[in-house]
Amino acid sequence: MNSPALSLFDPPQLDSDITLTEQISTMLVTKITQLGIRPGSRLPSVRALAQHLGVSRFTIVAVYNRLSDEGWIHPRQGAGYFVQARQSPPRDDGGMRLGSDAIEQTPSHRTLDVSWLLHGLLRDVSDPAIPGSAALLPAKWMDSELLASATRSVGRAPGHLILGYGHPRGYLPLRQTLASRLQALDIPANPDSNLLLTAGVTHAVDLVLRALTKPGDTVLVEDPAWFLVFGRLAAAGVQVLGVPRTPQGPDIDVLAQMAQAHRPKLFIVNSAVHNPTGYSLQASNAFQVLKLAQQHDFHIFEDDTYGDLHAGGAIRLAALDGLQRVLYANGFSKTLAAGLRCAFLAAAPGLINTLTDLKLLSGLTTPELNERVLQRAMSSGQFRRHLDRLRNRVDVARVETMKRLSDLDVSIHHDPAGGMFVWGDCHRDSDQLARSAAGEGMLLAPGSLFSPTQAPSSHIRFSVALAENPAAWRILEKLLG
Amino acid sequence: MNSPALSLFDPPQLDSDITLTEQISTMLVTKITQLGIRPGSRLPSVRALAQHLGVSRFTIVAVYNRLSDEGWIHPRQGAGYFVQARQSPPRDDGGMRLGSDAIEQTPSHRTLDVSWLLHGLLRDVSDPAIPGSAALLPAKWMDSELLASATRSVGRAPGHLILGYGHPRGYLPLRQTLASRLQALDIPANPDSNLLLTAGVTHAVDLVLRALTKPGDTVLVEDPAWFLVFGRLAAAGVQVLGVPRTPQGPDIDVLAQMAQAHRPKLFIVNSAVHNPTGYSLQASNAFQVLKLAQQHDFHIFEDDTYGDLHAGGAIRLAALDGLQRVLYANGFSKTLAAGLRCAFLAAAPGLINTLTDLKLLSGLTTPELNERVLQRAMSSGQFRRHLDRLRNRVDVARVETMKRLSDLDVSIHHDPAGGMFVWGDCHRDSDQLARSAAGEGMLLAPGSLFSPTQAPSSHIRFSVALAENPAAWRILEKLLG
Repeated sequence: MNSPALSLFDPPQLDSDITLTEQISTMLVTKITQLGIRPGSRLPSVRALAQHLGVSRFTIVAVYNRLSDEGWIHPRQGAGYFVQARQSPPRDDGGMRLGSDAIEQTPSHRTLDVSWLLHGLLRDVSDPAIPGSAALLPAKWMDSELLASATRSVGRAPGHLILGYGHPRGYLPLRQTLASRLQALDIPANPDSNLLLTAGVTHAVDLVLRALTKPGDTVLVEDPAWFLVFGRLAAAGVQVLGVPRTPQGPDIDVLAQMAQAHRPKLFIVNSAVHNPTGYSLQASNAFQVLKLAQQHDFHIFEDDTYGDLHAGGAIRLAALDGLQRVLYANGFSKTLAAGLRCAFLAAAPGLINTLTDLKLLSGLTTPELNERVLQRAMSSGQFRRHLDRLRNRVDVARVETMKRLSDLDVSIHHDPAGGMFVWGDCHRDSDQLARSAAGEGMLLAPGSLFSPTQAPSSHIRFSVALAENPAAWRILEKLLG
Repeated sequence: MNSPALSLFDPPQLDSDITLTEQISTMLVTKITQLGIRPGSRLPSVRALAQHLGVSRFTIVAVYNRLSDEGWIHPRQGAGYFVQARQSPPRDDGGMRLGSDAIEQTPSHRTLDVSWLLHGLLRDVSDPAIPGSAALLPAKWMDSELLASATRSVGRAPGHLILGYGHPRGYLPLRQTLASRLQALDIPANPDSNLLLTAGVTHAVDLVLRALTKPGDTVLVEDPAWFLVFGRLAAAGVQVLGVPRTPQGPDIDVLAQMAQAHRPKLFIVNSAVHNPTGYSLQASNAFQVLKLAQQHDFHIFEDDTYGDLHAGGAIRLAALDGLQRVLYANGFSKTLAAGLRCAFLAAAPGLINTLTDLKLLSGLTTPELNERVLQRAMSSGQFRRHLDRLRNRVDVARVETMKRLSDLDVSIHHDPAGGMFVWGDCHRDSDQLARSAAGEGMLLAPGSLFSPTQAPSSHIRFSVALAENPAAWRILEKLLG
């Protein structure tokens, strides 16, 4: 019975804001998702863990009960608690797993699946011990005081300002600030007619899918691309086809052929700092993409989530197109705080009207409280300075990460143009490598996750947060050396 | 040319938080939606309004341009700006009006439509001059300082706490607080397995429709019921059938017959303080509804939005059922602040798992910032005291409103059990009455709006905010006297 050493478990920090049960639960889930505590292993006894952490047994019982309810661990009669072997929280009704079609199509040998990774990434409080696949930058790189002071400032304004539902398109001063930023990127956004605030870029994708597609329609994505979108598209019942992403942009020949053969309604693209490769679109490629969109009458969803990490001067499709066929989305999860859930869509006025109706029908307005906090944070010069610092820090960490990966014979075929990820070719099956890493307590994101068909791949998406983590390099050396 | 007097236009308040353009735009839209400035009438010239309000002409040009973009007014060559005659913001592409199927089925003689009313209600900053149909209680009845101080308090906590995405099901301490409140209503909610935080009750409806229905399915609603839901259901492509609401609850014979004939997937119900009638479910009726749900295998969505305005002791289906077939939703828009967009769903663990996946796929997490603010506000005794005060105030205003309506020969056939609405029978076509009221600058909500088939009705949903508004009574006396 391979029970982990008690020393693995961190004692709780006294933090009046978080209950002990919550703190200890989060610590355990972090260990479980990062496989510091392996599936199947037995957890310490209630008495031993209570004694080790200096808390009451009642607290540990509450923690174990909660984690059992959530499906991370399970009790075994008379033998204690064990880490759930299947790496996805189990369903207790068995019947309904909606929105999981993409997950269920994944090859059964896959250890990691979308649902598991997503739950793990979200539990992971942005500072994982071993950041192999982190979706966020380390907390210490962010300007948390900027956010806190903006929140206090909003709290000092008269409280009646947030009693109402707010504007259907979102808080106008924030739309005005965003419009100025877009205009600086040559995207001609009018704050009144071209902008809609959303609760994150994922919410924006959701509204656009509702507006522009119906089940059975074809939607093109890049290959590779962000895995969450595959799940969303599968849930919408649309046919998903992948267009290979080259360092210059989407493969134009394949795009032309697919547009001709499948009459897609939509093409979802990261133009600047593509996730996972970090590539940015070249002008001639962008022009070709827009020409095909016009010729075959499809819309383009330009997801610019990572674009703010580009040094500047990247091409945006929305700028070339002038917000005709391109719907542009961006947010602040990577640069300010994921917990704000503030993002926006820029598009043609007619589309914005339709999307506003859909936003109202599916959830009324977005919270003006957050929009005021974001507006306050952005209107101080501090945000711009934070963004510059963050970009520099990410650039330094990326160069360092690439250098160390190349020392381990991981090939980066084309330099990324910016951003927090490095798309490295490990010259072997990356699913297998991710499994081995998991065995060492490190979560890696293998290439198959980013493939619309979950095809095996020799690539891994590495996070630049690795640069500052010696423990991670020891594991990578062992696995790749 | 009937141009409104300049004295109608309020001078702006100096408020550093809101731009002048925004303030003046909001003032004008309020006048337009409440028909203080009638459709077709000419707005004052830029120079005259600038002089009257003591602002620059540039500001008025910006305001008029914005309102033109939004479709509230339109310029006429050489003649100035005019209030848009059609009472719904026009679409500039003409083609796409998704989610508006229900709206388009409304009889063409109708002056008010769902989209118009919804946009108007949302623009209306919770303190309309003549609150005929207000969806929110007056701002001065709310405890805005409770909210502001909770926001400041969250801003004083370490900022890194909201850097991450937060828990997929929402902030745990808030789920724990909500679970205690539910347990006090005999609803057996476990904070870990039965609760999912959502961005408003409308978002909860949206997730449940995605989880439990597909296009072509039948969904039962009450008749009358909240009109926004009809729009959402139409957008989902489901068949909507209305079950008459009696003072005791849904008409059991009709429900049985429809369940038999149409095999519905879902029945959407307000059990306590039904919108718009204010009726609350009786125990024997609740039992029959649950028996039918079991027999015909459909789920029940119990929308308890107005339940907190009940004096206590109301039956909840979720309590009787023990969260098996019933999904229970509630929020804080009516009792704390609509701008928080915080609500929750309580349901069986298997359903909560499915709904959590759908929540993640369609928008990731809900904002932890707001959930922390709400948790802070609720964990002070002040929230409970505010709720008691609010309920008393609403009760007093409702009795007063009913008395004055009955003096005008409006019949209230059964006393509502609580809440902010009075369902009054005016003994004439209420669409016609609403049109006449609109002519006097007062927005009323006629019964046809609350009918799943938009059937003509002699009822009007009056807001208890009327009680404190002498101007409103003068208009009602003129119309009904």
